[in-house]
Amino acid sequence: MDHPPLDFTNWSTTCIDLVNHFLDTHLPASDSEPSVLHEAMRYAALGSGKRIRPLLCFASGFITQAKTEDLCVAASAIELIHAYSLVHDDMPAMDNDVLRRGQPTCHVKYGEAIALLAGDTLQTLAFQWLSESSNHPEKQLYLIRLLSQASGSMGMGGGQAIDLLHVNQAMNLSQLETMHKMKTGALIEASILMGAYCGHPPQPDQHDKLRQIGQNLGLIFQIKDDLLDIQSDSATLGKTAGKDAARNKPTYVSIMGIAKAERLLEQLASETYLLIKQLGDSAHYLMQLSQLFVHRQH
Amino acid sequence: MDHPPLDFTNWSTTCIDLVNHFLDTHLPASDSEPSVLHEAMRYAALGSGKRIRPLLCFASGFITQAKTEDLCVAASAIELIHAYSLVHDDMPAMDNDVLRRGQPTCHVKYGEAIALLAGDTLQTLAFQWLSESSNHPEKQLYLIRLLSQASGSMGMGGGQAIDLLHVNQAMNLSQLETMHKMKTGALIEASILMGAYCGHPPQPDQHDKLRQIGQNLGLIFQIKDDLLDIQSDSATLGKTAGKDAARNKPTYVSIMGIAKAERLLEQLASETYLLIKQLGDSAHYLMQLSQLFVHRQH
Repeated sequence: MDHPPLDFTNWSTTCIDLVNHFLDTHLPASDSEPSVLHEAMRYAALGSGKRIRPLLCFASGFITQAKTEDLCVAASAIELIHAYSLVHDDMPAMDNDVLRRGQPTCHVKYGEAIALLAGDTLQTLAFQWLSESSNHPEKQLYLIRLLSQASGSMGMGGGQAIDLLHVNQAMNLSQLETMHKMKTGALIEASILMGAYCGHPPQPDQHDKLRQIGQNLGLIFQIKDDLLDIQSDSATLGKTAGKDAARNKPTYVSIMGIAKAERLLEQLASETYLLIKQLGDSAHYLMQLSQLFVHRQH
Repeated sequence: MDHPPLDFTNWSTTCIDLVNHFLDTHLPASDSEPSVLHEAMRYAALGSGKRIRPLLCFASGFITQAKTEDLCVAASAIELIHAYSLVHDDMPAMDNDVLRRGQPTCHVKYGEAIALLAGDTLQTLAFQWLSESSNHPEKQLYLIRLLSQASGSMGMGGGQAIDLLHVNQAMNLSQLETMHKMKTGALIEASILMGAYCGHPPQPDQHDKLRQIGQNLGLIFQIKDDLLDIQSDSATLGKTAGKDAARNKPTYVSIMGIAKAERLLEQLASETYLLIKQLGDSAHYLMQLSQLFVHRQH
């Protein structure tokens, strides 16, 4: 990415604007048929998402001097996968959630059938965008491999299945970690690897570090999520607070308690910061993003 | 494809066995976690499907001397997309169907949440398989483009949306044709193009003919489906007969009547046979498959 050396706030705002612009201009227009479906897809993918995964993609792409245009495609494809998973996860058959980012969930607004199809076609579009890029075919094919492996039944989709199969069931720490590595961690890890592979392919040692950073950040993200769910309120979170406890879902907090969960978070954070330092100066955006993962309030 | 000159029955049995074997050995094992999800994926993708799209893929791959191993990957990926669409289409929010290929539908057997995720992850796996192939990256990327464009909101997924938005609503012939071109035709067309592009890339003229054949076969398939729905019974069809009329869904038969629908079928069949003849002798399997489209009884 050929930026001037922006400070973190300017850099992250720029990245988010780029991704939002890409999504807005590349998602099918609301007035193209079938317009209701396209409206629902746009509703789910645009809006006030935090764009955490796109930012991770840009931050690691900065390390390997990836081109902005290639990062935009990869980051937007990742965001489509994330958006589709939220649409389906919110549906009555799954979490049955009516509020997302402070707005009615997709099926509440468009009905279950259209929400189902919007999720389906957002996923398809992610792979379509990656296949239409003018970047090197080998690279694009590898990005598709990373994204599909991370989001399928051995990754995000499988993690969601384990999650819902364990409602009202006991889970030990190791099972909880496996579930979150798949459900959240895999896509976070893929975001970091995909960003890096948009540029000069990482060396094996760099690849391994990026992977480990991604895995750690996935767990950090989830532990923080569990802590916020019990420590924050719905208005701050933009989604229903306390819902894990209400559903008797196993969380880091329910298994370890708040104090131990906070200590685990700090320990993972230290490890992660050390790994990022070893990647050198160009990893500074990744460092600041990781600090944000640890200290976010929503 | 380096076969000996098999007759059509042997050839189609061989192709179906190859695809079934590929699916069986490449779908995640039932005992790998999350096992319920993997069972549901296997339930939806294996079993007694007619494998029409894989056969089309093999038949056009025969024209361009595609390798069997490449056709197996492409045909199986197409079949996963087809299987995922059936799982989601059968769900209560969509068609609410309890019978498919004479068996309980996926959500009846595994519950709605697992069926939703099984459909999601079958789609992901299709793109994963295409991205993991050892075929030329340019070719594989193009196959992914063909498959994603055919199955997204401008193809199959969009056609399903138009379909469900028109239950209990009038539709004219042109709207019905647009819907079916998207809902069924796009994936059938993609099956033919993907098979061809597994081998020596078709010339522009050949490409156009294959596309037109695919579009025609999509319509033929649908008109035949509508005729069978009213002329056959559930036992023969392996799914609920007469359901279109029961739901007041627009069909070729409801709009044109049986006699005109049969004439349209014959006219499209003649056009298609002519196009296939122009492709030369190596298109003979495609010819016999097309005749099967026209004359099938279930």
